[in-house]
Amino acid sequence: MDKINIGLIGAGFMAKAHSIAYAGMPMFFWPAPAIPVKKKIVDVNEQAAREGALKFGFESYSTDWQDIINDPSIQVVDICTPNNVHAEIAIAAAKAHKHILCEKPLAMTAAEAKAMYLAAKENSIHTMVAFNYRRTPAVQLAKKYIDEGAIGKILDFRGTYLQDWSADPDSPLSWRFQKDICGSGALGDIGTHVVDMLRFLVGEFDAVHARTATYIQNRPVQTGLADSLGNSRGGAEAPRRAVDVDDQCCFMVECKNGAFGTIEATRNAWGRNNYITFEIHGTEGSLYFNYERRDELQVCFSGDGDDRRGFRTVYTGPAHPYGEGLWPIPALGIGYTETKIIESYDFFKSIAENTESSPSFRDGYAVELISEAILKSAKTRDWVKVGEIQED
Amino acid sequence: MDKINIGLIGAGFMAKAHSIAYAGMPMFFWPAPAIPVKKKIVDVNEQAAREGALKFGFESYSTDWQDIINDPSIQVVDICTPNNVHAEIAIAAAKAHKHILCEKPLAMTAAEAKAMYLAAKENSIHTMVAFNYRRTPAVQLAKKYIDEGAIGKILDFRGTYLQDWSADPDSPLSWRFQKDICGSGALGDIGTHVVDMLRFLVGEFDAVHARTATYIQNRPVQTGLADSLGNSRGGAEAPRRAVDVDDQCCFMVECKNGAFGTIEATRNAWGRNNYITFEIHGTEGSLYFNYERRDELQVCFSGDGDDRRGFRTVYTGPAHPYGEGLWPIPALGIGYTETKIIESYDFFKSIAENTESSPSFRDGYAVELISEAILKSAKTRDWVKVGEIQED
Amino acid sequence: MDKINIGLIGAGFMAKAHSIAYAGMPMFFWPAPAIPVKKKIVDVNEQAAREGALKFGFESYSTDWQDIINDPSIQVVDICTPNNVHAEIAIAAAKAHKHILCEKPLAMTAAEAKAMYLAAKENSIHTMVAFNYRRTPAVQLAKKYIDEGAIGKILDFRGTYLQDWSADPDSPLSWRFQKDICGSGALGDIGTHVVDMLRFLVGEFDAVHARTATYIQNRPVQTGLADSLGNSRGGAEAPRRAVDVDDQCCFMVECKNGAFGTIEATRNAWGRNNYITFEIHGTEGSLYFNYERRDELQVCFSGDGDDRRGFRTVYTGPAHPYGEGLWPIPALGIGYTETKIIESYDFFKSIAENTESSPSFRDGYAVELISEAILKSAKTRDWVKVGEIQED
Amino acid sequence: MDKINIGLIGAGFMAKAHSIAYAGMPMFFWPAPAIPVKKKIVDVNEQAAREGALKFGFESYSTDWQDIINDPSIQVVDICTPNNVHAEIAIAAAKAHKHILCEKPLAMTAAEAKAMYLAAKENSIHTMVAFNYRRTPAVQLAKKYIDEGAIGKILDFRGTYLQDWSADPDSPLSWRFQKDICGSGALGDIGTHVVDMLRFLVGEFDAVHARTATYIQNRPVQTGLADSLGNSRGGAEAPRRAVDVDDQCCFMVECKNGAFGTIEATRNAWGRNNYITFEIHGTEGSLYFNYERRDELQVCFSGDGDDRRGFRTVYTGPAHPYGEGLWPIPALGIGYTETKIIESYDFFKSIAENTESSPSFRDGYAVELISEAILKSAKTRDWVKVGEIQED
Ligand SMILES: NC(=O)C1=CN([C@@H]2O[C@H](COP(=O)(O)OP(=O)(O)OC[C@H]3O[C@@H](n4cnc5c(N)ncnc54)[C@H](O)[C@@H]3O)[C@@H](O)[C@H]2O)C=CC1
Ligand SMILES: NC(=O)C1=CN([C@@H]2O[C@H](COP(=O)(O)OP(=O)(O)OC[C@H]3O[C@@H](n4cnc5c(N)ncnc54)[C@H](O)[C@@H]3O)[C@@H](O)[C@H]2O)C=CC1
Ligand SMILES: NC(=O)C1=CN([C@@H]2O[C@H](COP(=O)(O)OP(=O)(O)OC[C@H]3O[C@@H](n4cnc5c(N)ncnc54)[C@H](O)[C@@H]3O)[C@@H](O)[C@H]2O)C=CC1
Ligand SMILES: NC(=O)C1=CN([C@@H]2O[C@H](COP(=O)(O)OP(=O)(O)OC[C@H]3O[C@@H](n4cnc5c(N)ncnc54)[C@H](O)[C@@H]3O)[C@@H](O)[C@H]2O)C=CC1
Repeated sequence: MDKINIGLIGAGFMAKAHSIAYAGMPMFFWPAPAIPVKKKIVDVNEQAAREGALKFGFESYSTDWQDIINDPSIQVVDICTPNNVHAEIAIAAAKAHKHILCEKPLAMTAAEAKAMYLAAKENSIHTMVAFNYRRTPAVQLAKKYIDEGAIGKILDFRGTYLQDWSADPDSPLSWRFQKDICGSGALGDIGTHVVDMLRFLVGEFDAVHARTATYIQNRPVQTGLADSLGNSRGGAEAPRRAVDVDDQCCFMVECKNGAFGTIEATRNAWGRNNYITFEIHGTEGSLYFNYERRDELQVCFSGDGDDRRGFRTVYTGPAHPYGEGLWPIPALGIGYTETKIIESYDFFKSIAENTESSPSFRDGYAVELISEAILKSAKTRDWVKVGEIQED
Repeated sequence: MDKINIGLIGAGFMAKAHSIAYAGMPMFFWPAPAIPVKKKIVDVNEQAAREGALKFGFESYSTDWQDIINDPSIQVVDICTPNNVHAEIAIAAAKAHKHILCEKPLAMTAAEAKAMYLAAKENSIHTMVAFNYRRTPAVQLAKKYIDEGAIGKILDFRGTYLQDWSADPDSPLSWRFQKDICGSGALGDIGTHVVDMLRFLVGEFDAVHARTATYIQNRPVQTGLADSLGNSRGGAEAPRRAVDVDDQCCFMVECKNGAFGTIEATRNAWGRNNYITFEIHGTEGSLYFNYERRDELQVCFSGDGDDRRGFRTVYTGPAHPYGEGLWPIPALGIGYTETKIIESYDFFKSIAENTESSPSFRDGYAVELISEAILKSAKTRDWVKVGEIQED
Repeated sequence: MDKINIGLIGAGFMAKAHSIAYAGMPMFFWPAPAIPVKKKIVDVNEQAAREGALKFGFESYSTDWQDIINDPSIQVVDICTPNNVHAEIAIAAAKAHKHILCEKPLAMTAAEAKAMYLAAKENSIHTMVAFNYRRTPAVQLAKKYIDEGAIGKILDFRGTYLQDWSADPDSPLSWRFQKDICGSGALGDIGTHVVDMLRFLVGEFDAVHARTATYIQNRPVQTGLADSLGNSRGGAEAPRRAVDVDDQCCFMVECKNGAFGTIEATRNAWGRNNYITFEIHGTEGSLYFNYERRDELQVCFSGDGDDRRGFRTVYTGPAHPYGEGLWPIPALGIGYTETKIIESYDFFKSIAENTESSPSFRDGYAVELISEAILKSAKTRDWVKVGEIQED
Repeated sequence: MDKINIGLIGAGFMAKAHSIAYAGMPMFFWPAPAIPVKKKIVDVNEQAAREGALKFGFESYSTDWQDIINDPSIQVVDICTPNNVHAEIAIAAAKAHKHILCEKPLAMTAAEAKAMYLAAKENSIHTMVAFNYRRTPAVQLAKKYIDEGAIGKILDFRGTYLQDWSADPDSPLSWRFQKDICGSGALGDIGTHVVDMLRFLVGEFDAVHARTATYIQNRPVQTGLADSLGNSRGGAEAPRRAVDVDDQCCFMVECKNGAFGTIEATRNAWGRNNYITFEIHGTEGSLYFNYERRDELQVCFSGDGDDRRGFRTVYTGPAHPYGEGLWPIPALGIGYTETKIIESYDFFKSIAENTESSPSFRDGYAVELISEAILKSAKTRDWVKVGEIQED
């Protein structure tokens, strides 16, 4: 089994998730496609980098991501920084012929994403965008049912990503509220997860009609780089600054295959925490998923007898996608960790077997084109065609 | 206690619901605003009329609704026919100075609804449109919380009405699929209930952006007038005819008070039966309701402590709206019957106390203006302003 | 269609439920087995009787139940009094050759129940005990699946009836807390419903092992006869008196067919309202029901494929038991009213067709034998065999 | 930060869970009480040991657990073998002055458990029994509410652990069905988790009254040591052997503080996967938990206003127990991994801070005394007092 050396950039929330995934992946999926070795961790914040190395188990650390690009022993670059530096790092890594796992959203704009995609393509590296929610086994099971035709032709769908961590006007102005660092607000932060999921399940988006809103116009300025996700609050006297991204976005979608849907994302929905849901209606059945109860998929088959038809609550386990690697009993417990372990498995498998990974930078670019159309529609109040992927 | 004589027109599904409401109302709400007397029932189908009198307990029957208009002893006309004759009957009844309870949707078009509204106004009668779902105690509790400010200013909302009784392509072409009888499809049939409910809870709609679809292009022609709601199916050889209304509609809403929402209605969602739901996010809390579990309202208050905040599942009972008249313990069971009993109570109360009822023909007209805007938007693919109520 | 004249005794909570059932039954089930005529209502409280006649629609009233026994035009006696007078009235009615619908529990003791059963038998009348919860369509659907063998041989089960209306120590000492009026506490009041339901679904009980508890030792004395079910509370200065019945009871059950189960009933479970549930495990599947969400039955079939097995949530409607008479769409809404309408239908059908009704006084007697065994076991702390029905 | 060397015995299902916990613990809880070092792994099956070292990341492996006892560099022994060797290994490890994390149930009998407890006590080592489910943050939150008095004095409770992996008569006779390896069946395997949880939440058990059953009398003999938990099935021709432990057990519990409860455990409940639930009723509120939806705790406070009381669904996150170390947003996802990471954290913290851990071997011994009483009661059909812990 090959060892593959990893350099990870950005020692915050996602660094933790990726680090446990690297440790756990071979424990879950064996034989593993590779044994990930946590070589170097980088953060502009020196303390974060130093501590990150200790707690996440990296062999060394640095405050300059170029150290990772320049280290020839490193084969995989893992980008866990805020969105504003994804492109720069990824393009440099691609040029250095390193495979890349990049956190979502891939970029701040479609233009950036395009440049990243093309750099990766030119240098023939393997890429993955970390839309891990689609890897929840219950979501993969939904995909399986759809591919088998078990719910027929898809007619319409609804997706949501609702949270409440920024509903309090005193939760601070972290990087997630600053357009020059994040690109967009709820849209890029959480909406893109649902876009990825539904594009994966339903098919390519053709046109969108959107609306965005900023409910809380200014917030207490945050000190420190990493985002505390609402877990600290600014006092009444804290200086406040304007929010220049969306708190909420909502859009209608027309897919190329004729399916229609609506998607909404907000971080201001009291009582919703990580409420990623979809409901899909097909000619032969329906699907419902709620990530807050992520061990379950609900499915209704029209073919069941009239006296016994109803949504089945299927708890995923060994008989379902990725079941061979996960826990031996359903409902033992899929957590965030498990979704990232699967992500890591698929990424290293695509490298080991030299296959196309999914979602790749190409998919991340496609999502950026959709985001661009959404932001445009929110301004023009018209339907906007999603731009085409440009291959050069 | 006064007795009030009722003439009911259209001896189908709704006749049953209204009849039990008349019988049950004084049993539940005592002292009752009036004792309803089931005087005469009318159906163009003679057998339906005759049997209707027997089973629903009317003193006499007829096949001509004019017999009700012309009967001076009848004070209330109850219109339970398909939508195409609502206007004609209502206008005649208004001119005859009879109070009117009319099933929803009020009319087939906004123009019809306007004429009905003006006729009622001119003749100073009491009117009610039978949007009974808003009378579910849990919905009224939502209204109470909103009015108390318990969830703050409303930001956004989502409403659905999903059913599956017409998802089978062989469920027959009843009047609900024929534009000249129903006016519109899922929109008028079920969508208007959600429009009424959210207009009631959130406020006036200002503009809409809509999409409609007809998934099943033709259906087996039905024999007989009354709609079996998918409970019989046409055979393979049954002659089929085109459906000229929507199976599904979905729209974005901008309210006059700034709130934003989406609503969808479909009768082709396998596994959903009477899935009338809303979720409302305010600056201080959230509400969620699902009529399939109608004894419950879910509410989250931002003011609850961080360590104990979450949606509360409140089962309505004596401590909640209409609790004095309903069952003495929550979850004993609110059924369709109970919602219609409350409707009947409110209608007779408005007559007895000579107050404005709600939803009145004016509200029914407002809903028709919204429907008109929706159908227009579905064609133009643009945002469409909802028309203004015209007072003459 | 025959008319059948009814005399109802006890103008409280249940009088309302029975009255709407009589009114609604022919509206729902047509052709009806009979047209019930509300002839006379009786209550020892004169105001209750007088008002009862008005609001429930009876032709006359009285304060003496003998007036009903002595009225030869009355064919059915409906006993809705507290438990202490069930036996006396029923035996008199039986001797007068009137059919009897008696509220549950049938009696205060097994001895009383035996006398009632024998009186009914001797006089060849039709009897029914008003265990209406088993008539919920979802419960009947469970029975159908069991009878079809769809869940195989039953292994074990769990039943609950949890409420919270008496959890407050200041809710008053109504008749439900006085042994000489009610016979037993939570056991007779609510526990017997679950006993009836599971005896119906699973089979005869052979032996029980029980525990009972009185959590609140005394309560404010209530003024007035009718029970307000916790909806009024005694003040701090109200005189208090001892409770001499159980607040909670819990028992293990061994059935004659080998199935094993546990049942618990309490009126002191904060947050539970009318939480009648059962879960049944068989060799080929499982069932789960919760009356608080009574439109639904959950069923798991072992035969479903490994990759799509899970509890199905079936909403009852036209394709399920009693569906021909209820509402034309599932989840339109089964309320308490509908369960009593079905009860009334079955009772009159058994009279009209001269068939054995179920649950009859014989069943009510069987439940009393179980209650007796439970109370005995709670004292001896041993397993106690359920007594045998004595046929004379 | 100290490194602590670990020797793990038994390279099966639990080895994986413990290994990821060791890797993840410092990533989650920082500063960590110690950095666990995976030194040596042992399995009697040589292939399991060799592969285990590779995939779980141990420095070396062996087939003889004495190699761990004899390795002076190893400070912690982690026992992940079937139950039959827990005692022997633990006593040896205690004598070698190594701290012990032992999987549950602690032993096959109370006598064994006593010996283990005394050995640990004599040698002043830190011990923990791996009842990880009580470490689910929602369970800890329940404990917090109880300790704060938020639900008052506990009256009664119900606990379940329902699974279906052995409901198929062809799922093989693994060690979990052989008394000489497992001690007891559903009781020891899963029932003890609920016993631990409720003892933790409610208090010491005083007496029990139990019933056990073996539904499937014989099963296909399994080849290979590790248990596949029903994920492979024996063919029709496979030789079968008798099961000599319980498939199901159910018991009543009287606690020293007066609380009463019932607990049931079965591995034959179709559709239930890892259905660990409890419901607790107190004088001031109620709690409900279901591990299948483990991010949530439901709590009802009697003190909430009558018009807004109901179970609150609290999703655990930063504001709840262990929230400082877990994920920054509720419902991001607690999986099995996270429960084991918390277990590992608490264990190493007790070592680092030299405090009593919980549940310790003393608790594991207490649970064995309860199990012993349960098995005895199931035979005698009487209430059985739980034996006292003997301190020497
Ligand atoms: N897949 C998922 O579910 C999630 C994805 N994300 C994505 O992960 C990325 C990181 O987000 P979080 O970990 O939540 O952020 P965070 O705020 O917790 O951590 C970001 C870290 O990056 C460091 N950093 C900033 N600029 C840097 C630079 N130029 N070089 C090196 N380090 C730099 C900061 O000092 C900080 O420690 C974002 O793209 C975000 O959208 C975040 C959360 C969940
Ligand atoms: N509030 C609610 O939840 C519901 C409202 N409705 C509304 O109630 C109305 C009636 O619907 P259903 O009862 O379901 O219809 P249905 O098809 O069951 O019955 C309609 C009856 O009207 C009779 N009819 C038709 N034209 C007539 C005329 N000119 N004069 C006298 N009788 C005539 C038919 O013969 C038939 O018996 C519609 O407007 C519908 O939208 C229907 C179902 C639910
Ligand atoms: N099936 C079910 O779900 C339910 C059944 N019940 C049963 O129904 C029966 C009545 O209970 P509720 O209606 O709740 O009681 P309630 O307290 O509301 O009414 C009882 C009425 O009976 C009257 N009464 C007492 N003694 C009388 C006598 N000797 N003659 C005439 N009237 C007399 C009282 O004045 C009172 O008005 C009880 O046996 C109870 O267990 C009660 C509630 C639900
Ligand atoms: N806390 C929890 O949720 C769970 C606890 N457990 C407990 O963990 C323990 C292990 O169970 P699993 O991992 O499921 O078993 P398993 O069957 O997956 O693995 C047990 C391993 O131990 C090895 N083994 C047997 N005897 C040995 C010996 N004398 N020396 C060294 N290795 C030996 C076997 O070869 C096998 O590889 C049991 O006590 C079980 O009750 C198991 C599952 C869940």
